Amino acid sequence: MSDIKKIKGGVCAPEGFLAGATGCGIKNGEVTRDDIAVVFSEAPSHSAATFTTNNVKAAPVLVSASHLKAGRNRAVILNSGNANACTGQSGLKNAKAMAAATASLLDLKPTEVLICSTGRIGVPLPMDRITKGIAALYPTRTGSKSAAASIMTSDTFAKEFAVEVKTPDGTFRIGGIAKGAGMIDPNMATMLCVVTTDAAISQPALRSSLRRSVANSFNRITIDGDMSTNDTVILLANGLSGVTPAVSVFDAALDEVNRALARMIVSDGEGVSRFVEVEVTGAATEKDARTAAEAIANSTLVKCAWAGGDPNWGRILDAVGYSGIKMKESKTDIYYDNLAAVKNGVAATTPFPKLRAIAAKKAFKVRVDLNVGKASYYVWTTDLTEEYVRLNLGE
Amino acid sequence: MSDIKKIKGGVCAPEGFLAGATGCGIKNGEVTRDDIAVVFSEAPSHSAATFTTNNVKAAPVLVSASHLKAGRNRAVILNSGNANACTGQSGLKNAKAMAAATASLLDLKPTEVLICSTGRIGVPLPMDRITKGIAALYPTRTGSKSAAASIMTSDTFAKEFAVEVKTPDGTFRIGGIAKGAGMIDPNMATMLCVVTTDAAISQPALRSSLRRSVANSFNRITIDGDMSTNDTVILLANGLSGVTPAVSVFDAALDEVNRALARMIVSDGEGVSRFVEVEVTGAATEKDARTAAEAIANSTLVKCAWAGGDPNWGRILDAVGYSGIKMKESKTDIYYDNLAAVKNGVAATTPFPKLRAIAAKKAFKVRVDLNVGKASYYVWTTDLTEEYVRLNLGE
Repeated sequence: MSDIKKIKGGVCAPEGFLAGATGCGIKNGEVTRDDIAVVFSEAPSHSAATFTTNNVKAAPVLVSASHLKAGRNRAVILNSGNANACTGQSGLKNAKAMAAATASLLDLKPTEVLICSTGRIGVPLPMDRITKGIAALYPTRTGSKSAAASIMTSDTFAKEFAVEVKTPDGTFRIGGIAKGAGMIDPNMATMLCVVTTDAAISQPALRSSLRRSVANSFNRITIDGDMSTNDTVILLANGLSGVTPAVSVFDAALDEVNRALARMIVSDGEGVSRFVEVEVTGAATEKDARTAAEAIANSTLVKCAWAGGDPNWGRILDAVGYSGIKMKESKTDIYYDNLAAVKNGVAATTPFPKLRAIAAKKAFKVRVDLNVGKASYYVWTTDLTEEYVRLNLGE
Repeated sequence: MSDIKKIKGGVCAPEGFLAGATGCGIKNGEVTRDDIAVVFSEAPSHSAATFTTNNVKAAPVLVSASHLKAGRNRAVILNSGNANACTGQSGLKNAKAMAAATASLLDLKPTEVLICSTGRIGVPLPMDRITKGIAALYPTRTGSKSAAASIMTSDTFAKEFAVEVKTPDGTFRIGGIAKGAGMIDPNMATMLCVVTTDAAISQPALRSSLRRSVANSFNRITIDGDMSTNDTVILLANGLSGVTPAVSVFDAALDEVNRALARMIVSDGEGVSRFVEVEVTGAATEKDARTAAEAIANSTLVKCAWAGGDPNWGRILDAVGYSGIKMKESKTDIYYDNLAAVKNGVAATTPFPKLRAIAAKKAFKVRVDLNVGKASYYVWTTDLTEEYVRLNLGE
């Protein structure tokens, strides 16, 4: 049995990974905070990544996808303040220039660098400032926290998480940094995440582990149903621990890191006051379960009710109904935590104040049992508050 | 050529239709407002109706659908304060009892009565009060406005509209009442509408005219993407004008009434500060155009930007991208009214303050030209304000 323990250090927790950040005034020329960061493996590394499925992909996503194909990626350059999205040909040129400047700093080939940008859409990158910023980066073994902080947009806290895994063959580590906040959807909205590990994993194994883990973590989260043009999760593995863990051991540890970061992203969603796990069970298919869970989680009316601490099960049943899945009202049960709100499609006997007490908590679970099959799916979501609207009124 | 003129009188504008309302304290026993209404044709009439496509259908919808099949429907009984939804077998019994009480008042068969309910979900109807209320109804030729007012929930004004159509063969009229507000979606959310006409139209023609017109009106509107369990549009035709208009003439007049009522519903959506027409043109298929238009109209981020008067085209392009339709970023143009915000996927030359001035108006149009085909579709929608959230925090 392996032993997974939470440790400090974020992306620098695994051996041989350096990180650093600096400020170069990307948003409006004033250097008031760090806004550019790098994560770098001192040793050659394998890489895997998943990108937004949005048909509108930002330039850094397109360039990173092409660099990923070239392989041997050892560094990630990240910036906040400007998403380099909807910027056409010059956007692609600028993303490539960011990779080239980073490669020159770290003595790599440009294709060994992946690029992540987040921030305003449709505005050209200020390349003079960015190039100077990249040249000023100085990655170290303790730079994870400042890198995590530099990519924050409307995030209220820097997100990092790492684990150490003891196996009979030795110890390896996995660590990550992430940013989220607005626009978080099952298909990964303006969400950037860099995960590093010193486990020795082959390229194909790394790719399949990442795909599986993202399905269990970042693709489970939905705050407002929007999906951004820049979403990226990158995993670098440099093998410096000398440990090649069993796939199941590596996957469990990777899930631990990705799920922790995903939960941080949900909890830090814009204006969020409640964290809600929505599970649909007893569905005919997993696809049905997922469709219904996402319909509930993305219903503005359901989310507004939660913001008010109202366990409004009518709106939940309504959302299940319009999701179009196979269901029968008279078979459907709804639970808040372990208390039944609905049995067989009508109000259960649980006294309303007890349900209201659950819906008023900071975190609770809603389960809908369709009782028509055996498939299930859950998502993590939030309420929708007046503050969310205020934060998104525009710039 | 026919001549369509707006007239007063709502559902009572056509010959032979009576309406009335009274208060019976449905919500909590206190009679503070009218909450039950009837619309009745003195002469035998044909009928057509469209109902919610939600898999969870309220009892009045199920009973009305069955009465519709029986045909010869001459009256509609409507109530606010309680939706009689998610109420199981007793809900069906109560909906039938409402029809029976109305039939006894008007000397009809119970199946000649259709039923519409709106209000809270999951609470049994207070049948003693409702039965007394129905017995107290006294429909007259001037009762349309009070009927329209009695079915309001979070609506801020009573909605009625009527037209008179002069044809070479004589004059006929179409009139309607409606309620909307929260939970309005393309598939008709808590939206009730009763339309009457004294045109002489066969049952099959009536049905096809209604289906076509609903697709051009109520199914174009989307406020929060939720779809209710009770949505109903009913059309009664008693032929008393003696005029059988050409289908195109009748359809044009019916559209006039339904589109006017639909626009009232959107403008009166909960917490709405802007009315926005979203049109997608140059799409490969009408289905693509509709999918993209609805993705934009239901994006909480786009709607929040509009609330702030921000013409945030990045969020619009983002929504088009994740809608999954056939599109190419570098071919996509976006317009606010007639000013280009985006050309070929990147910012157009229109100065930002000019776009901002449009997005700050009470009503404006957003058009996305995909430039990949010839199909188009539009929807009517609104912004998403802090007040919307406040109104939906729960009871």
